[in-house]
Amino acid sequence: MPTADTIAAISTPAGSGAIAMIRLSGPQAFGILGKVFKPGKKGQTLSQMKTHTNLLGTIHNESRVIDEVVVNVFRSPNSYTGEDLLEITCHGSVYIQQEILALLIRQGARLAHPGEFTQRAFLNGKMDLSQAEAVADLIASSGKAAHQLAMKQMRGGFSKELDILRVQMLQFVSLIELELDFAEEDVEFADRSQVRELIEEILVQVNQLIRSFELGNAVKNGIPVAIVGETNTGKSTLLNSLLKEDKAIVSDIAGTTRDIIEDVIHLEGIEFRFIDTAGLRHTDDTIENLGIERSFQQIDKALIVLLVTDPTAPEAQSQRWVSRVAEKIRDDQHLVILVNKTDRNPEAARQRKTYIQSQSSGSKKAEIILISAKTGSGLDELISTLLTTVNLSALDNQDVIVTNVRHFEALEHTREALDRALNGLSTGISGEFLAQDIREALGYLGEINGTITTDEILGNIFKNFCIGK
Amino acid sequence: MPTADTIAAISTPAGSGAIAMIRLSGPQAFGILGKVFKPGKKGQTLSQMKTHTNLLGTIHNESRVIDEVVVNVFRSPNSYTGEDLLEITCHGSVYIQQEILALLIRQGARLAHPGEFTQRAFLNGKMDLSQAEAVADLIASSGKAAHQLAMKQMRGGFSKELDILRVQMLQFVSLIELELDFAEEDVEFADRSQVRELIEEILVQVNQLIRSFELGNAVKNGIPVAIVGETNTGKSTLLNSLLKEDKAIVSDIAGTTRDIIEDVIHLEGIEFRFIDTAGLRHTDDTIENLGIERSFQQIDKALIVLLVTDPTAPEAQSQRWVSRVAEKIRDDQHLVILVNKTDRNPEAARQRKTYIQSQSSGSKKAEIILISAKTGSGLDELISTLLTTVNLSALDNQDVIVTNVRHFEALEHTREALDRALNGLSTGISGEFLAQDIREALGYLGEINGTITTDEILGNIFKNFCIGK
Repeated sequence: MPTADTIAAISTPAGSGAIAMIRLSGPQAFGILGKVFKPGKKGQTLSQMKTHTNLLGTIHNESRVIDEVVVNVFRSPNSYTGEDLLEITCHGSVYIQQEILALLIRQGARLAHPGEFTQRAFLNGKMDLSQAEAVADLIASSGKAAHQLAMKQMRGGFSKELDILRVQMLQFVSLIELELDFAEEDVEFADRSQVRELIEEILVQVNQLIRSFELGNAVKNGIPVAIVGETNTGKSTLLNSLLKEDKAIVSDIAGTTRDIIEDVIHLEGIEFRFIDTAGLRHTDDTIENLGIERSFQQIDKALIVLLVTDPTAPEAQSQRWVSRVAEKIRDDQHLVILVNKTDRNPEAARQRKTYIQSQSSGSKKAEIILISAKTGSGLDELISTLLTTVNLSALDNQDVIVTNVRHFEALEHTREALDRALNGLSTGISGEFLAQDIREALGYLGEINGTITTDEILGNIFKNFCIGK
Repeated sequence: MPTADTIAAISTPAGSGAIAMIRLSGPQAFGILGKVFKPGKKGQTLSQMKTHTNLLGTIHNESRVIDEVVVNVFRSPNSYTGEDLLEITCHGSVYIQQEILALLIRQGARLAHPGEFTQRAFLNGKMDLSQAEAVADLIASSGKAAHQLAMKQMRGGFSKELDILRVQMLQFVSLIELELDFAEEDVEFADRSQVRELIEEILVQVNQLIRSFELGNAVKNGIPVAIVGETNTGKSTLLNSLLKEDKAIVSDIAGTTRDIIEDVIHLEGIEFRFIDTAGLRHTDDTIENLGIERSFQQIDKALIVLLVTDPTAPEAQSQRWVSRVAEKIRDDQHLVILVNKTDRNPEAARQRKTYIQSQSSGSKKAEIILISAKTGSGLDELISTLLTTVNLSALDNQDVIVTNVRHFEALEHTREALDRALNGLSTGISGEFLAQDIREALGYLGEINGTITTDEILGNIFKNFCIGK
């Protein structure tokens, strides 16, 4: 892919600030900036600066000084993009930023598309595709855990894992293809039982990666938690108490990119998105029932469901809701039943807990926690339950966790192809078909790190980047 | 003033973007960053990097990688602040920015106060005070003219002008003080008629600077224009038509700092702030009259008043308003009378113009322009009148223009002291008193560029800066 043109963009956040940065990358970077830049010291020339140096100077629009700037010089191939890259640090007035950008474009640069600097880094072999995608995730990360996953991926954790899988498969494909060359002699270079073993081994790893997506996706986008319960059980009080536990600094800062429609709470670096639901209410009214149906639909979207109950409410009625909600919970969801208002009547709360346990003995396992949303008692236990419910320990070890839905889908396709291969082995299909399945699996894996790409894949990936990266 | 501590701040605009920059300045800059930064290449050491180089590496919080960053190295005294200065360019996630800043602070840096980097630049003799103030103006500038004035001032235009004045006065003070040493001998080293000539000459320059403030302030803060007129003369249509002429790119961009309460239009790089007024209306009602009084108060704040008239309205009534508004116009204000709706009845409009001219012959001079706010005819003439009404040619030549109210006040005080000196010369006061007046004038001039400063002056100046500059 030719990158003959030179691209420019404002790379720092939009708006006014002390300092802003404009990036210029491509074969004409020095030529374009050279036409409007004058070094501050005599004897200096932009075009003769060594890589990884910087120099002070002024940017001119004809005789008018636009700004005093510092230019960081990165020469191809030792730059982020792999091309000649100049980073212009200017005063952060919006007017100045725009003037400089406009000047560069008038001198022959082109406004960069979103993510185009990173796309060039990929095209020039500075990083693979999964690393490039991690750059966008890194910039979007708003909590410790999401940041850690993106950082690991950007630094090549996933790429290494994939490479190991690919090398194993490639070796096998070569052997099969050798067989095909000698087809008339009916030899088997690839021992079928070894092949089966290998595929099964790879499938274990692929499945592990696929399973990690549930956690990875939840960490990246926030773990959805639904708080449900009858009216007046204290759902809002609970939410407010939890919000006070949020220790994240990011929530204090304006300009975070994601539109927050739900209450977001950061607990130990993990983002939990709390989905508000209407209070459940006993009724024969069909319209009311529609509202309850809607609450139940919200449960569907959650990974964790907190069911708040009031121990002072009639036992049987309360239990009816517990049962109805418990029925709705899928295997991949977690139900936590909260017996609230322990401050009012601790004894009733304890009895209610025992009662719920006795009633639920046959159904799916749910944690039951005594809390007082009002005084905060029991919240520590709830928080630690939230944190252990999702398998967060996986974040700390060196396992790779899939966070990207594109990767998840490619892995699913890989699994299907490998399953077909395994099936074929059982039915004794020819080496040719076997090789085709494995090659297909290889193709899907290759999509992840960009060994195999199409313009469409690239377009989809980079359109979600911010401009200037 | 000791700057023993090392300061840190996020210098790029608030929020998320491709790239952000964190600055670290002070004697411990290398030591602090060195504890959390690991160079990307073996053999590199942050502390051994030469000035004006940059290096790639990672920032760590213990074993956790926070980000891959580029560090720009500026060594004292060759930096913006004059101290060791490290600029860390990181990925623009708010989380990462905060994590890095928090790390630096944990390692011993202190969060910088607003403008503290520039304040250190001033204290370390990298720029004088008027230049430091221009940095803030530059960042706040949202149009070509305001930008140009700030740039001129930052590059030392004002400082040079002041130095010339100061040198002249200092020479004179030395001579007077020499006289005082020889007081018993009754000599006059400083020729009194030459002194008078010199003071008068300086006063001419000081007065010119003082006068320039009107323009400078208007350019910096936008030129206030009031549109007044009877109801239904087409004021809103006019404003909308003018808004369409706004060629500024800045208005398209979110995040400009100033809260816009009025309609702002950029014409040839100059910002015009249009003040909306209630329609004037003939009435005997006292409450209505209060409203009209309020419109007239708006006229008070304007530098240019556009009075819109409808040539199809009764002549006498229309003229009554023209007279009332014209009476209100101060000498430093400009009145432009617009005869609108030329599209409807061009002949009536021409006649009305002649009529207004004949009626106003005795009063202050006002431009009268035929326009059609609806079709846009005559708007070019109006715009060129707006542009020439304020003496914008002064912006293009090399004259220094005062934009800062602090400077304006210091110049006023300088003038007062010089006036006293001149008065003293006429009444033959002693050299001692003469020298005192001149020294006072020198003091006020010195406040402008910071030759003479107090903590209070510095505090007031830098508190209005953004953090990170």
